[in-house]
Amino acid sequence: MKAFILSEWLQQYFFSSGDGPAYSRLYDLICRAILEGHLAAGARLPSSRGLAADLGIARNTVLQVYEQLTEEGYVHAGVGRGTYVEDISQDLLQPAASFRETPGTAEHKGPIGHDLSRRGRALLAHLGFSSRQAGAFMPGVPDVREFPLKTWSRIQNRLWREGPWDLMRYAPAGGYGPLRQTISDYLNSVRSVRSSAQQVIMTTGIHQGIDVAVRLLCDPGDSVWIEEPAYWGVRNLVATAGLRPVPIRVDDEGIWPREQDREHPPRLIVVAPSHQYPLGMVMSLARRRMLLDYAQQVSCWVLEDDYDSEFRYGSRPLPSLQGMDDAGRVLYAGSFSKTLCPGLRVGFLVVPEPLSLAFADAVAELYREGNMVHHAILNEFIRNGHLASHIRRVRRRYAERRDCLISEIHHHFGDRLDVVGGDAGLHLILALPDTVDDQVVVRDALREGVVTRPLSTYYLDRAHARSGLLLGYAGVTPDEIRPAFDTLAQVIGRYLQSMQTKGGRRDDTRRTGTQ
Amino acid sequence: MKAFILSEWLQQYFFSSGDGPAYSRLYDLICRAILEGHLAAGARLPSSRGLAADLGIARNTVLQVYEQLTEEGYVHAGVGRGTYVEDISQDLLQPAASFRETPGTAEHKGPIGHDLSRRGRALLAHLGFSSRQAGAFMPGVPDVREFPLKTWSRIQNRLWREGPWDLMRYAPAGGYGPLRQTISDYLNSVRSVRSSAQQVIMTTGIHQGIDVAVRLLCDPGDSVWIEEPAYWGVRNLVATAGLRPVPIRVDDEGIWPREQDREHPPRLIVVAPSHQYPLGMVMSLARRRMLLDYAQQVSCWVLEDDYDSEFRYGSRPLPSLQGMDDAGRVLYAGSFSKTLCPGLRVGFLVVPEPLSLAFADAVAELYREGNMVHHAILNEFIRNGHLASHIRRVRRRYAERRDCLISEIHHHFGDRLDVVGGDAGLHLILALPDTVDDQVVVRDALREGVVTRPLSTYYLDRAHARSGLLLGYAGVTPDEIRPAFDTLAQVIGRYLQSMQTKGGRRDDTRRTGTQ
Repeated sequence: MKAFILSEWLQQYFFSSGDGPAYSRLYDLICRAILEGHLAAGARLPSSRGLAADLGIARNTVLQVYEQLTEEGYVHAGVGRGTYVEDISQDLLQPAASFRETPGTAEHKGPIGHDLSRRGRALLAHLGFSSRQAGAFMPGVPDVREFPLKTWSRIQNRLWREGPWDLMRYAPAGGYGPLRQTISDYLNSVRSVRSSAQQVIMTTGIHQGIDVAVRLLCDPGDSVWIEEPAYWGVRNLVATAGLRPVPIRVDDEGIWPREQDREHPPRLIVVAPSHQYPLGMVMSLARRRMLLDYAQQVSCWVLEDDYDSEFRYGSRPLPSLQGMDDAGRVLYAGSFSKTLCPGLRVGFLVVPEPLSLAFADAVAELYREGNMVHHAILNEFIRNGHLASHIRRVRRRYAERRDCLISEIHHHFGDRLDVVGGDAGLHLILALPDTVDDQVVVRDALREGVVTRPLSTYYLDRAHARSGLLLGYAGVTPDEIRPAFDTLAQVIGRYLQSMQTKGGRRDDTRRTGTQ
Repeated sequence: MKAFILSEWLQQYFFSSGDGPAYSRLYDLICRAILEGHLAAGARLPSSRGLAADLGIARNTVLQVYEQLTEEGYVHAGVGRGTYVEDISQDLLQPAASFRETPGTAEHKGPIGHDLSRRGRALLAHLGFSSRQAGAFMPGVPDVREFPLKTWSRIQNRLWREGPWDLMRYAPAGGYGPLRQTISDYLNSVRSVRSSAQQVIMTTGIHQGIDVAVRLLCDPGDSVWIEEPAYWGVRNLVATAGLRPVPIRVDDEGIWPREQDREHPPRLIVVAPSHQYPLGMVMSLARRRMLLDYAQQVSCWVLEDDYDSEFRYGSRPLPSLQGMDDAGRVLYAGSFSKTLCPGLRVGFLVVPEPLSLAFADAVAELYREGNMVHHAILNEFIRNGHLASHIRRVRRRYAERRDCLISEIHHHFGDRLDVVGGDAGLHLILALPDTVDDQVVVRDALREGVVTRPLSTYYLDRAHARSGLLLGYAGVTPDEIRPAFDTLAQVIGRYLQSMQTKGGRRDDTRRTGTQ
């Protein structure tokens, strides 16, 4: 195993993997090395003594992690001594790794951290993406099984039969023209977004929209206001671009800058007014007016992240912030990742008219995009009304799933735990008492096969973070929701109980949960 | 026309559109405004007097540009006075613009340059991409009409029938696992690239590979060596990342740093050893050794841009630089844009093993990629040998087209003009005497419908640039090549003649060519 040396890899990632307990960091990293195929089946883990010395942690911690991994079937004790990686290739989309010898590389490589740039190390220290993209209760993903495969294929086949030569080249700046017009019309009717086709800039998703906006509008050292809490991805894009993310508190009406915040105007404000992420509330009309006035007054930009407003249960979606903006300060970012599926990689920015050419050019220059075949299919799909009916159909389905999850929560916890932000979107938040460490609950749930996300990690300022779990319900059927929530409820129950018996001291909870 | 105001737009772009003559800059910008749909059919151009005053140029220049545009059918003189945009929507992929009123935005917008970041303005001042992507002699594009539509559709249809749910989510870090393995195997056999599947990081193309490499490996202020001349896109990515591009001369053996260059080691060196872009020579073995030794000695990275080495006519492709690298300093970037088609947006990086996890994570974090359906189709396409046979087939075809172009060149110019770099790739260079301004020739040819690229603009240091034309031949049949080259030869002939009659003084040539 010259090509991948676990202990070196662990040394490099262990110290940048957050400030959680050593036990869980080590467990997560080894799991990951196995799940991502860096450790092939049959590979031997380092001795517990050696690894403990390398990482400067107690040998007992390593032994406990190995034990846990054995119980969970990731590794097994071999003949004689040593611990060996199991063959888990059946479970994975990615094939089991089959390393070949790459002579020479092993000796020369130093600890990787030294070879990356500072911004590269910072980027990797705060990863927001997840390799796990399905199952109860992964938030932020739609049910891809609902994708309108037949309708899409029909359009696709027709296009392919015609020989879509012009669609197979690099895309023109801004993207495929007819789709830009269609999206402009569509947004105008469903979101009250006011734009010409030229203001619609095709992207591969909201994430890319944010990346180009921060690079094109802000210079190193500029500050960017980010809602506290907010979507993980924003922070990292902002920081990688050399900018300073400034967390701004939110309340029930949305972003709510303090007087001292307002004295230091940012260059850009990123908000999700239709459905705050992850808390789920809608920004009030008063707060929208305040935000637009302030942006105009200090001449900063506002990026409206409208990632899932199509899914609103009960009330109609509010019109967009962009539609209220008379000063041309708002950029509106949207995507088909939630309405159709993430694999499409089609999103868009709607920018103020004076910026439209600059953004079209910059996206082309920075990313050399092009998937116009998808653009053309999507164009026909929307034009023929398929998108609208697809959204209506899945909205009903997601509403059922949300109801199922909420009723499970009430069944298990009655009124003891609050549900936050369940009126819209693809996830809700199950609030936990702040004495319960949500990261520990998430980890324990994951061990039993249930995916959740700890609310506290969406805050930049962890000291004032609220505890809770993000539960995505859109991607799972009621039949999947019920047993998964049973399992999760048991995990949560243990911590609620332990909190009661131990007087709720956080330190105790944490210790119980980890070693 | 509240939404788009030509004179404001011209004021903003005119001064950042390079240092060419006012006439050609103005002509290019107005053409672009029409071709990209910013000016709808029937829109009225500003008065020549007003526009001249706005831009601070002679009214006569504006009049000449309007005359030229009228001759070429972009605009027409209206009833009474004024110049109006023609309906050219039939000619375009993009639909004619249909602007709607967007009340309020017009009054508040200032000159756009003031609202962009410094790096944004720099990015836009040096655009490398082109909206024109087809026709004789657009370089760097394959013949998309040769795309193996049937084979691809067959695989695609089978996949869609199965319901490729897992492929419709966000991709795991690094991309679709089976394709990473396939590319690793493929590169090993055809390019002697040594890697495991984990070292293959899927990207959307070489451009994205370079973008992530410069951001992950270099910090603001670091210098990056770039071949002089080189691919346009590199410079802009390097500069946007806050880095300093340092041009390094090349000779017939490839990159050739001077002693004073070597005294200031860069953080990264970007080279195209298999087929220098745009000059087309192969880096010699001695120079490769020198480069690898130097990189190891100063601990910098080398990015090997292997954009089109599959197309080598006559001799076999040389093995990759990566395959010679025993110190793990080389990143290898490749793409299917030339072998299949740009619209696929599938490329890859092969990184040294210690960087593999970092790059997989960084690509996922920065770009949230995902088009795994394409990945899965491509995987089967390569596995079943279709890629290899497709390349063999089109290589023969491109060789015929190259031969046709070279014979046209000899037919028109005998030995008076040199052909450079015609042994491989999708384009060659027709060298011009340095007394002929290649930018002027390119502009004149474009007016007669022939696309070429001026060699001089690929140099960072224009003072030492060589004059010549990049002629792409892969995307056009011999029947298209012959008349297009006839036209081009006449344009070139005028300048060769004018050079002789006027003693070859560059100033004269330039003046003749412009006003």
